[in-house]
Amino acid sequence: MSSFDKLTHHFQSISNLQHAYSMLSWDNASVMPSGGAEARSNAIAELSTLIHQKMTSPALEELFSEVEANDTINSASVREMKRQWSQATVLPEDLVRAKSIAGTKCEHAWRTQRGDNDWAGFEKNWAEVVKLSQEEAQIRAQAKNTSPYDAMLDLYEPGTTSESLELVFNDVKSWLPLLIDQVIEKQAFELVTLPQGHYPREKQKALGLDVMKLLQFDFEHGRLDESVHPFCGGVPSDVRITTRYDESEFIQSLMGIVHETGHARYEQGLPKSLAGLPAGEARSMGIHESQSLFFEMQIGRSNPFIAHLARLAEQHFGSSNSQQFSQDNFQKLYTRVKKDFIRVDADELTYPAHVILRYEIERDLINGKIKYTDVPELWNQKMQQYMGLSTEGNFKNGCMQDIHWTDGAFGYFPSYTLGAMYAAQFMAAMRKNIDVDSVIVSGDLTPIFSWLSDNIWSKGSLLTTDELVKQATGETLNPAHFKDHLRNRYL
Amino acid sequence: MSSFDKLTHHFQSISNLQHAYSMLSWDNASVMPSGGAEARSNAIAELSTLIHQKMTSPALEELFSEVEANDTINSASVREMKRQWSQATVLPEDLVRAKSIAGTKCEHAWRTQRGDNDWAGFEKNWAEVVKLSQEEAQIRAQAKNTSPYDAMLDLYEPGTTSESLELVFNDVKSWLPLLIDQVIEKQAFELVTLPQGHYPREKQKALGLDVMKLLQFDFEHGRLDESVHPFCGGVPSDVRITTRYDESEFIQSLMGIVHETGHARYEQGLPKSLAGLPAGEARSMGIHESQSLFFEMQIGRSNPFIAHLARLAEQHFGSSNSQQFSQDNFQKLYTRVKKDFIRVDADELTYPAHVILRYEIERDLINGKIKYTDVPELWNQKMQQYMGLSTEGNFKNGCMQDIHWTDGAFGYFPSYTLGAMYAAQFMAAMRKNIDVDSVIVSGDLTPIFSWLSDNIWSKGSLLTTDELVKQATGETLNPAHFKDHLRNRYL
Ligand SMILES: [Zn+2]
Ligand SMILES: [Zn+2]
Repeated sequence: MSSFDKLTHHFQSISNLQHAYSMLSWDNASVMPSGGAEARSNAIAELSTLIHQKMTSPALEELFSEVEANDTINSASVREMKRQWSQATVLPEDLVRAKSIAGTKCEHAWRTQRGDNDWAGFEKNWAEVVKLSQEEAQIRAQAKNTSPYDAMLDLYEPGTTSESLELVFNDVKSWLPLLIDQVIEKQAFELVTLPQGHYPREKQKALGLDVMKLLQFDFEHGRLDESVHPFCGGVPSDVRITTRYDESEFIQSLMGIVHETGHARYEQGLPKSLAGLPAGEARSMGIHESQSLFFEMQIGRSNPFIAHLARLAEQHFGSSNSQQFSQDNFQKLYTRVKKDFIRVDADELTYPAHVILRYEIERDLINGKIKYTDVPELWNQKMQQYMGLSTEGNFKNGCMQDIHWTDGAFGYFPSYTLGAMYAAQFMAAMRKNIDVDSVIVSGDLTPIFSWLSDNIWSKGSLLTTDELVKQATGETLNPAHFKDHLRNRYL
Repeated sequence: MSSFDKLTHHFQSISNLQHAYSMLSWDNASVMPSGGAEARSNAIAELSTLIHQKMTSPALEELFSEVEANDTINSASVREMKRQWSQATVLPEDLVRAKSIAGTKCEHAWRTQRGDNDWAGFEKNWAEVVKLSQEEAQIRAQAKNTSPYDAMLDLYEPGTTSESLELVFNDVKSWLPLLIDQVIEKQAFELVTLPQGHYPREKQKALGLDVMKLLQFDFEHGRLDESVHPFCGGVPSDVRITTRYDESEFIQSLMGIVHETGHARYEQGLPKSLAGLPAGEARSMGIHESQSLFFEMQIGRSNPFIAHLARLAEQHFGSSNSQQFSQDNFQKLYTRVKKDFIRVDADELTYPAHVILRYEIERDLINGKIKYTDVPELWNQKMQQYMGLSTEGNFKNGCMQDIHWTDGAFGYFPSYTLGAMYAAQFMAAMRKNIDVDSVIVSGDLTPIFSWLSDNIWSKGSLLTTDELVKQATGETLNPAHFKDHLRNRYL
């Protein structure tokens, strides 16, 4: 067996264990009875350890030194294997374990501390998470010769740096606050009605499945289930998406399904010839989010798609009040802008402000420019500056609102807004060749998905993010498309 | 760490992988979309290999030679670890792999060959399965100094031999055929009506869940789902049972749920202090089946329990025909005896004949006394002798009907009838201290389950089967209880 074949075989065997890990995680979140938790967490920990052992196997170093890749696909394959391997091997085992323990402890306590607005309690656990994350970032930075924060960013967005991020984020900051104010003023006297009624789970599920069919979710290779926090899990040949139903309100869950379907179709569309190999995986968190946001924001909130949603909702729920189920009302519901505290509830327009605020704080924290004790006050200042809202003493709706920092996932937040910008740029490029609105009106969205499949999904991680975006759109990330999209939709 | 602690740690880590294996198997059978099959079978194969590697790890031999167990629990723990280890290590890897490949191939082809009554086609694949199973049996026999068949039997029924089996099976053969004829004659003019109607899945499920509640299934530690072939899977802290609904008929599926609930409560009741260790597992296949059959035959088909079933079924399905839902009709339905070809559809009375026939054939086959080509004719002879039915040329309803032999699970069949006999013996012992019928009538079956928990479930594999049965009932296996039970119920 050649070194290349040995590497391939080794990574496929890791992928088999990751399959088990993903499925147990899905089961955990969606169907497992509570009493199964302890045995499950032991099984998941066992798999984690085995995956880490295989990923850091001493045999790999030699294989990487010997391997010769004889074409572009194989060399991309080796590049991506090497990336995963070096990310895993660079950290000492002790640090990995210590961070995992501190993160689990902090996250677990946070689940109640947040509700209690208990910053003092949270801070005690979080100090350790921040310290260990800074250590991690420094070790990774040394290996990659970057700043500590950039080394963390690279875990989620290979190739993206603070410098490149700030170019686009500063652009957004230059026009977003004014745009938000203009739109809020414009919407001030609009009449919007949230459909009121009882919407049984089973009926909401049937509606969700119809929308997934419209979006050509492949039910031979995936399922829709329920969990407290919606997610997209499983493996490319068997993608498990989840949602949560509120029987008094279906609007939010419905768009959540559209979002997760975007993630799912990316996974379902990854190159089958590279199944089980790093080069066959999704390119980055930002590109992943670009697909969910393409579905949610570019397709899902477009007028012609909202017409489908309104029609299907009326079919499933009948309507005592046809005004509530009108396209016009749905469109206003799905494009309502409001300055508010909570990122996960934010609309398309204010979302980037939430992300940029977090980016600026976590960057300085990981680079050691600020201390963890500075975070609440910085949060308050930036919320006032970007949104005109004070979070003085309001930790719960301020810096304690997200799960990400509780277990040290620093560097993740930028992916959300990168995704939104990539999605807008992909749509702009697509519109050059496809009459997108007519395609959506027709109800057969195949041309849209073929474009995404050809340009994004089927590429896996064969290209770098910059190459991928440039081949698909003719240019690297350009925030002008995002600005144009928002102005067109909201002004 | 002591050698004992090292062994414990090692087997717990195997158990974590078995957890993943069990859950992926459950997922496979109950919720996985068809397109997930290929990746799933790779993941399951990977876990199998890892489990086998860990079970045959060279480090174990030394640990076993060093270990000192300082009390009865620990020495039982070591005995059971050793049992699993020696069963896994005695076979050469090549044989394990060859048998697995031949078995998978034969079973897969059988799925269509059976329907086609294609013995000639089946025989071609089966020859290899039989040959490799004979090789396996010979290697195991040499290691244990037994006959080849007894070595296979020991995999499912540790401690049981052909000699001990024949003592009880010959006893059964001496009275069963006459009893069957007497009962059939007695039932000849009974009027029985299978409830006719449309019984929607959701309603059948709700009924099944009510019956599981009556049987005190612990829903904090388990679930009910659907699969083509009902089974009990998962892990003791999270037991997954399945059933299959036929919307035109609920009688069979309902009793299937009772059966699987028996398996499940055994698993749920295993000793938590030994979780993840061989000594904490179920004692044997026969004892496992004794619990499902205790639930299905001893409790489930008793008059007072059938009264509950009839009442609950009427609650869930209303009734246009109250005669169909009467206790009397349900009781006749659930105790109807018929000589027929198919084991899985057999009633309580004829079932042992199906098992004894298979036992006699597989014993001689594995011991090399007959050839695989002799099986159809032997089957035909024994069916005529025990049941008065000819299977001449009828392979589909004869020797090709079961899955067990297709992948070489020789030695398994006796467990079914051992289970039925143990169940009757447990009930006879229980009746000495508990007024079982009154307890069932009351609807609170706690005293019954406490007896099973104290005497069977909580013992795991701490005792040998003989010790377990003797401690619970005052004697080792005695088929007289089974005979008394059948005569009482059916004559
Ligand atoms: Zn997303
Ligand atoms: Zn059973």
